[in-house]
Amino acid sequence: MSEIKAYGAQSADSGVHPMSIQRRAPRPDDVAIKIDYCGVCHTDIHFAENDWGRTLYPVVPGHEIIGRVTAVGDEVSGFRVGDLVGVGCMVDSCRHCEACEDGLEQYCVEGMTGTYNGRDRHDKSVTFGGYSESVVVSERFVVRVPEKLDPAAAAPILCAGITTYSPLRHYGVKAGDKVGVVGMGGLGHMGVKFAKALGAEVTLFTRSESKVDEAKKQGADHVVVSTDADQMAAMTGKLDFILDTVPVRHDLNPYLNALAYDGKHILVGLLDTVEPPVHAGALIGKRRILAGSLIGGMPETQEVLDFCAEHDISCDVEMLDIHNINEAYQRMKDGDVKYRFVIDMATLNT
Amino acid sequence: MSEIKAYGAQSADSGVHPMSIQRRAPRPDDVAIKIDYCGVCHTDIHFAENDWGRTLYPVVPGHEIIGRVTAVGDEVSGFRVGDLVGVGCMVDSCRHCEACEDGLEQYCVEGMTGTYNGRDRHDKSVTFGGYSESVVVSERFVVRVPEKLDPAAAAPILCAGITTYSPLRHYGVKAGDKVGVVGMGGLGHMGVKFAKALGAEVTLFTRSESKVDEAKKQGADHVVVSTDADQMAAMTGKLDFILDTVPVRHDLNPYLNALAYDGKHILVGLLDTVEPPVHAGALIGKRRILAGSLIGGMPETQEVLDFCAEHDISCDVEMLDIHNINEAYQRMKDGDVKYRFVIDMATLNT
Ligand SMILES: [Zn+2]
Ligand SMILES: [Zn+2]
Ligand SMILES: [Zn+2]
Ligand SMILES: [Zn+2]
Repeated sequence: MSEIKAYGAQSADSGVHPMSIQRRAPRPDDVAIKIDYCGVCHTDIHFAENDWGRTLYPVVPGHEIIGRVTAVGDEVSGFRVGDLVGVGCMVDSCRHCEACEDGLEQYCVEGMTGTYNGRDRHDKSVTFGGYSESVVVSERFVVRVPEKLDPAAAAPILCAGITTYSPLRHYGVKAGDKVGVVGMGGLGHMGVKFAKALGAEVTLFTRSESKVDEAKKQGADHVVVSTDADQMAAMTGKLDFILDTVPVRHDLNPYLNALAYDGKHILVGLLDTVEPPVHAGALIGKRRILAGSLIGGMPETQEVLDFCAEHDISCDVEMLDIHNINEAYQRMKDGDVKYRFVIDMATLNT
Repeated sequence: MSEIKAYGAQSADSGVHPMSIQRRAPRPDDVAIKIDYCGVCHTDIHFAENDWGRTLYPVVPGHEIIGRVTAVGDEVSGFRVGDLVGVGCMVDSCRHCEACEDGLEQYCVEGMTGTYNGRDRHDKSVTFGGYSESVVVSERFVVRVPEKLDPAAAAPILCAGITTYSPLRHYGVKAGDKVGVVGMGGLGHMGVKFAKALGAEVTLFTRSESKVDEAKKQGADHVVVSTDADQMAAMTGKLDFILDTVPVRHDLNPYLNALAYDGKHILVGLLDTVEPPVHAGALIGKRRILAGSLIGGMPETQEVLDFCAEHDISCDVEMLDIHNINEAYQRMKDGDVKYRFVIDMATLNT
């Protein structure tokens, strides 16, 4: 065990502050990683502030971790000291259910072990995330980060990136397909980049006229202001896929109607009931699909990093001094970040 | 043109009574058919009674038509006088959109032409259905009925059958898959037969303990009483597909939770909003799909008839004298039919 520096929340209204945590000595299958960068995800705020009522305090958030290997256990074969690696949203799973055997550990029948606020499957301790100096993770849940990538800008690929990449790949988006992306935050802007890289014609839906220029700059071929009923009606039957990154309730019916027959509306952000309700006729009448998708499995998380290196894709980030984490949370709540804060973990020692 | 006998409704509260209608002389691509049998679908009642507010009176219902060819137009190559044929829910479509070119005329971008209450695309007359002596239909929308099939019991295959067969095939249900069927009416009992014939292990969900024996007799491997919360909870994560034939609002969440990861819940009966609302987490957390499906295209309608002949599948029917059609409607509303009424059209002349 070693005691290290971290930032965490002690209660729902404490904010995030310096604290000390213990990291275990590497087990035979573990990789020890000194953390260089950690992205800040909205989920971090939800856990810090106990929005979902299941936070185990103290909580150390952070599941977009980039760093270098400092030690490996005896059985580790895939990583060596000095390797540039990443850790995303999960650090363990049952490893033997059908989902795990398919490399879809996020759908593990026993539930994945979260990178933070999870329960270690061996010693039952609460897991601590990437707002910290270092982390110790079983090899299976560590990915290799291509040296070609800017490591800071690569951090959000481990959550925002894989969350949007995985469904586009799973549903086979390919050149010529017409893809809609709903919402233009951390997830949405990555969705646009991936859909474009896969050769799709991309329409970005935004609630605000003011974001049209920015959406085009991100690579969208078309921009539709979703609050304009005429613009929405003009999209009827036009799209093959919709990647919906919006985390709050919104009316899906106008989007479903924008799909051609066999079109697929994929939810990756919504954490609530589907209200107003969808009309079954919008699904039945054109054989449309309403689907959901959660991050991605470990093989695909490796794949997205390699894809980003090959296609020169990274997240648009704003670097953050960890001393300013609470101000950053407030700016995220205000929608005032393009597109992801990434903590420079060197600031932990300043 | 020829004047023929039919049964139709003159208004929402008229009931269904004898009337005369005109049938066109065959166009070059038309097949003229003397009708032997016509199944009675719930949709017939909805149109007769104008439940959807779009009935064009007088309406002659009936879209599960079986009969023999009496004449063919000059350009008809696939049928000859005397052939046993069927006509289902549609008699035309645009024929050149992507859906039509894919043989999925039910998803035609211009909308299919219904077998009744539709508008003929040439002369703009209202189409009349199968509660009649004969019908004239373009060759593309006529299917061949294997002589091996009991023609009366084959009639419902043209709507109830294809509606359940098409999604099972589209989603690739195969031997060993675990399929749930929700509801045990005309659609549900066909769904059980098809899923079994495809080699699946079938669980039938029914609201009523009293239907358990009947469900097993229909071939279900397991029966779950859906109003029993414990039985539903015991199904968590167990199924690969759910074929949901229920036509009225019901809570989908317990069914979604019965699906394993990548499970698919397919709506074929619901004609309303999805309420209570589904929780997005039930879709996202296990990459599940909520989908819809509408009847089937013409190639697949031919396929299901051939499949039924090969696997010795037919609908369980109760033969009906057309003079008793209004009593039959009432019995259908009361749920008092196993499983489909089929009109013996010879009774039109008695
Ligand atoms: Zn995240
Ligand atoms: Zn597992
Ligand atoms: Zn029908
Ligand atoms: Zn068409």
